[in-house]
Amino acid sequence: MLMDPQELLSLCKRRGFLWPAYDIYGSVAGLYDYGPLGAALKNNIENYWRKLYVLGEGFQEISCPVVAPEPVFKASGHVDAFSDMYVECASCGETYRADHLAAGLHDNPASLSEERLGKLLKDKDVRCLECKGELTAPRRFNLMFKTSLGAGKGKTAYLRPETAQGMFVNFSQIYRYGRESLPVGAVQIGRSFRNEISPRQGLLRLREFSMMEAELFVHPQEKSWPGFKNVRHEKLSLVPNEGAPRTMALEEAVKSKVIVNEALAYFIWLTHKFAVDIGMDPKRLRFRQHGKTEMAHYAADCWDLEAEIGYGWVEMVGIADRGSYDVQAHIDHSGADLTAFERFDEPKEVEQEVVKPNFGALGPQYKGKAKQVAEALSKMSASAAKGKSEVLVDVGGEKLRVPASCFEVILKREKVAGRKLVPHVIEPSYGVDRILYAVLDHSYSKKDDYVTLRLKGLVAPIKVGIFPLMAKDGLDEIASGISDAVSKAGFAAYYDDSGSIGRRYARMDEVGTPCCVTVDYDTKTDGTVTMRERDSTKQIRIKQGLVPKAIEALISGAGLESLSKLK
Amino acid sequence: MLMDPQELLSLCKRRGFLWPAYDIYGSVAGLYDYGPLGAALKNNIENYWRKLYVLGEGFQEISCPVVAPEPVFKASGHVDAFSDMYVECASCGETYRADHLAAGLHDNPASLSEERLGKLLKDKDVRCLECKGELTAPRRFNLMFKTSLGAGKGKTAYLRPETAQGMFVNFSQIYRYGRESLPVGAVQIGRSFRNEISPRQGLLRLREFSMMEAELFVHPQEKSWPGFKNVRHEKLSLVPNEGAPRTMALEEAVKSKVIVNEALAYFIWLTHKFAVDIGMDPKRLRFRQHGKTEMAHYAADCWDLEAEIGYGWVEMVGIADRGSYDVQAHIDHSGADLTAFERFDEPKEVEQEVVKPNFGALGPQYKGKAKQVAEALSKMSASAAKGKSEVLVDVGGEKLRVPASCFEVILKREKVAGRKLVPHVIEPSYGVDRILYAVLDHSYSKKDDYVTLRLKGLVAPIKVGIFPLMAKDGLDEIASGISDAVSKAGFAAYYDDSGSIGRRYARMDEVGTPCCVTVDYDTKTDGTVTMRERDSTKQIRIKQGLVPKAIEALISGAGLESLSKLK
Repeated sequence: MLMDPQELLSLCKRRGFLWPAYDIYGSVAGLYDYGPLGAALKNNIENYWRKLYVLGEGFQEISCPVVAPEPVFKASGHVDAFSDMYVECASCGETYRADHLAAGLHDNPASLSEERLGKLLKDKDVRCLECKGELTAPRRFNLMFKTSLGAGKGKTAYLRPETAQGMFVNFSQIYRYGRESLPVGAVQIGRSFRNEISPRQGLLRLREFSMMEAELFVHPQEKSWPGFKNVRHEKLSLVPNEGAPRTMALEEAVKSKVIVNEALAYFIWLTHKFAVDIGMDPKRLRFRQHGKTEMAHYAADCWDLEAEIGYGWVEMVGIADRGSYDVQAHIDHSGADLTAFERFDEPKEVEQEVVKPNFGALGPQYKGKAKQVAEALSKMSASAAKGKSEVLVDVGGEKLRVPASCFEVILKREKVAGRKLVPHVIEPSYGVDRILYAVLDHSYSKKDDYVTLRLKGLVAPIKVGIFPLMAKDGLDEIASGISDAVSKAGFAAYYDDSGSIGRRYARMDEVGTPCCVTVDYDTKTDGTVTMRERDSTKQIRIKQGLVPKAIEALISGAGLESLSKLK
Repeated sequence: MLMDPQELLSLCKRRGFLWPAYDIYGSVAGLYDYGPLGAALKNNIENYWRKLYVLGEGFQEISCPVVAPEPVFKASGHVDAFSDMYVECASCGETYRADHLAAGLHDNPASLSEERLGKLLKDKDVRCLECKGELTAPRRFNLMFKTSLGAGKGKTAYLRPETAQGMFVNFSQIYRYGRESLPVGAVQIGRSFRNEISPRQGLLRLREFSMMEAELFVHPQEKSWPGFKNVRHEKLSLVPNEGAPRTMALEEAVKSKVIVNEALAYFIWLTHKFAVDIGMDPKRLRFRQHGKTEMAHYAADCWDLEAEIGYGWVEMVGIADRGSYDVQAHIDHSGADLTAFERFDEPKEVEQEVVKPNFGALGPQYKGKAKQVAEALSKMSASAAKGKSEVLVDVGGEKLRVPASCFEVILKREKVAGRKLVPHVIEPSYGVDRILYAVLDHSYSKKDDYVTLRLKGLVAPIKVGIFPLMAKDGLDEIASGISDAVSKAGFAAYYDDSGSIGRRYARMDEVGTPCCVTVDYDTKTDGTVTMRERDSTKQIRIKQGLVPKAIEALISGAGLESLSKLK
């Protein structure tokens, strides 16, 4: 049975996971605040991801600004193509995603032109959902938030719609930090922005959201990853774009070309591990391959991790082999040499395309700078110049546009130590907010109106509830002392001395706290406390000094029984 | 001797702490990328702060969007007053902070009107620093990045210039989560934005930066904090706005009214502890009290933590008692009831100001809604209505502006169980980027061109360098195994097998790695490795299996000698 999103969101708001942002000013669609429990849950999810990718796989974490100047998104294609169509109500001014209004009227309304979609809406007499007013013709709306850098006229800038571009534009820095070898990976965790026309659906479609993105730069002909050999026999539930859904071992999936290469297969597996470790239900997860028409033209392969939640099957993570598209786009637009160097085992005689400066044309045009321009041209990768009407070169910090008359791309035979290559990119891209939502959805359980959030200890915002049986006779002081010791050990504790113990358990169960500790009168005589595990509701007594260790053990997955062996 | 910022920034760029953002597109002033070492250092600083405030002091961490609708910053005063003056070069278009150009020509050029500052610049014939062109008259420029929410006309929105407002507008949620008692604290760590006119000075003046802000909501007459009693004898170096700089115990500073209250004093102390723990040099830290004219009119007291770095004495943290200003501003602008409730020990007869609806005026104006409006008015705090020409009330989700003719503020004598009060705010506000810069500055040391960054283990981006003496004979495999074990234990390790061991030590010393482990031929026979401590350059041999524990001990401040006792 699917979890009703309203019921879950209501718990989230009531208990401090989520608050509608700017509520006192009427709130804003698509913007949420994370309250204390939500922020902690989000931090825990992000930190575990960081542990997997940075400590585990050796990816470099970088952190770029969210504000970026226009050329970055001109190159990435977002300025020209990142848009939706909207219509406005002529009477009340309400705006709508035009393709959403045409759902059911056409197979793929988003693929229609503004004119055809407008005609369809008019023919079917679609009107404002609020006031039945007439709708304007559909118009394209770029989904990036636009702003301006600097005073006066300023420079057009945008809030990034994804964190990925920050890693593409820094490829050379990442490659150098990685000691100039491929594969090399970078990650970024941070906010991204999409100025959605009319966001609904809680955490699934936000105007401001968090992403965790990894970019693995690989050799175009060697798309593998060291860890693959250790997991090649692991099985995953796959929904390929041809043939029936199936459960398959990774190695078999790569051999039979269901998954395009080992690197992609490895990160599909890592994504599965991540999702299960943070508490998603493996029975409600699947990897769906993009259909051939759905995939970007440059992508070699693309899989989504989908989770079944109250809204249906929803994309959580996309894992794509994007080829050289992104890096090549920035080479083309910036003129920078974003290539890796492949050193041959021994120098080779090769025939390769190179850029040859045309001195006859350069001299008159660039005068004193002609020699520098020629040098810059010679260093360019041929792919950045071939077929272009002009190229950008950097001469002592100055960017010059050089027309095609000033160079040609020729085939040259020479002995070389290696060659430049534009890296391909394997991109696992995670939507944090929807992952957080799915974790809550899959953790929610209710029995006779008693709600238990079965969050794993790894991600639970509060690790332990600490209760004095009575807030007197020194029990409160003992409990406070335990609470301080637990906090000092780095675990979030929640001290609670109000209401019956049962009521206090209920409060902790509802927010996913994996265990509770109660201090009673026996504690004063024998120094032991009661430790209760949320999911089994079993209890044992342990020495109060062992509480921090016991919490650590429970979070790492040890059973309650094993705690009696702690020392 | 002060550290040359150029030398430090050059190290930062070369070694992967910082990269100029969007460098391939010519970079943008005031925007930096954190490379792998910078991002890790920043995470470590933020996580330690989080540990102090959230785990240590029990503050609630929340996380709000950076995009906010205009009314939020209308209320906070930023729309009207958060601006600088700029001038533009009529020839080359370069823009400048007008007051910066007038430095030395006037005591406080920022305090002048546009006209007077313009006249001053003209009289002194100040010209464009680039091309000597003429400058335009000074104009005010709002420093918030402006954007728009939603399609069509959209709603004006801004990128937050500080994280604080997210906590003020959520006071009621924070208060409820904190079980409706004062004091209650919230924190936020995240990006903020200021569209600086012409940012220079590296990390000190960024257009996009990170803040860690805490807001402690306190009872207006009880500005204390439980931890104060434990630190009251601690001494700090204070520069009060009257009298000579002095070193004073906190208790004495509060008693003699040098610091206005205990809560403020406590967070000044906590800020000092934080700064020293992350590696700032206590001899180059001081707390400077804002001058009486420098302080905001509503502030009861304000102290800056200043650090002496290559740029001179620079503000790192501001710690202010902001009174009720911020919360009251949002009460006034939103009509929301952002008050705490103080329950008296027993019901009291009091005379207090209340809002009394004027039914004669309400009826004709609000018809069917008059009763609801009257109820909403009765519930308002008198302070939000007194002297106002109109007030905002919320009637079933609809915001109505109610003119003063519809209510009056009267004195009423009645028996009450308690009273509403607008909380005061103690705000410690930390600039992450400049703190990170100061940590690097204070850690930098150079002897005969050999650079050592003496970063503390707590914040060091890499905790250990791991080297096989030779990349063969199985030494490399042993070293890789140790590296994996260290990573699994949660510590960032850097495996390096190239160049002499001395060269590898130097690489790690330069980026602040506190220790290195070398695997040599003895390791194969007796299972021990050499562990070298950066600052003492001393070495001991320990069992290879103990390396993770040894790193943990070193980071926690244990001496190298003590490691021989590890088991």
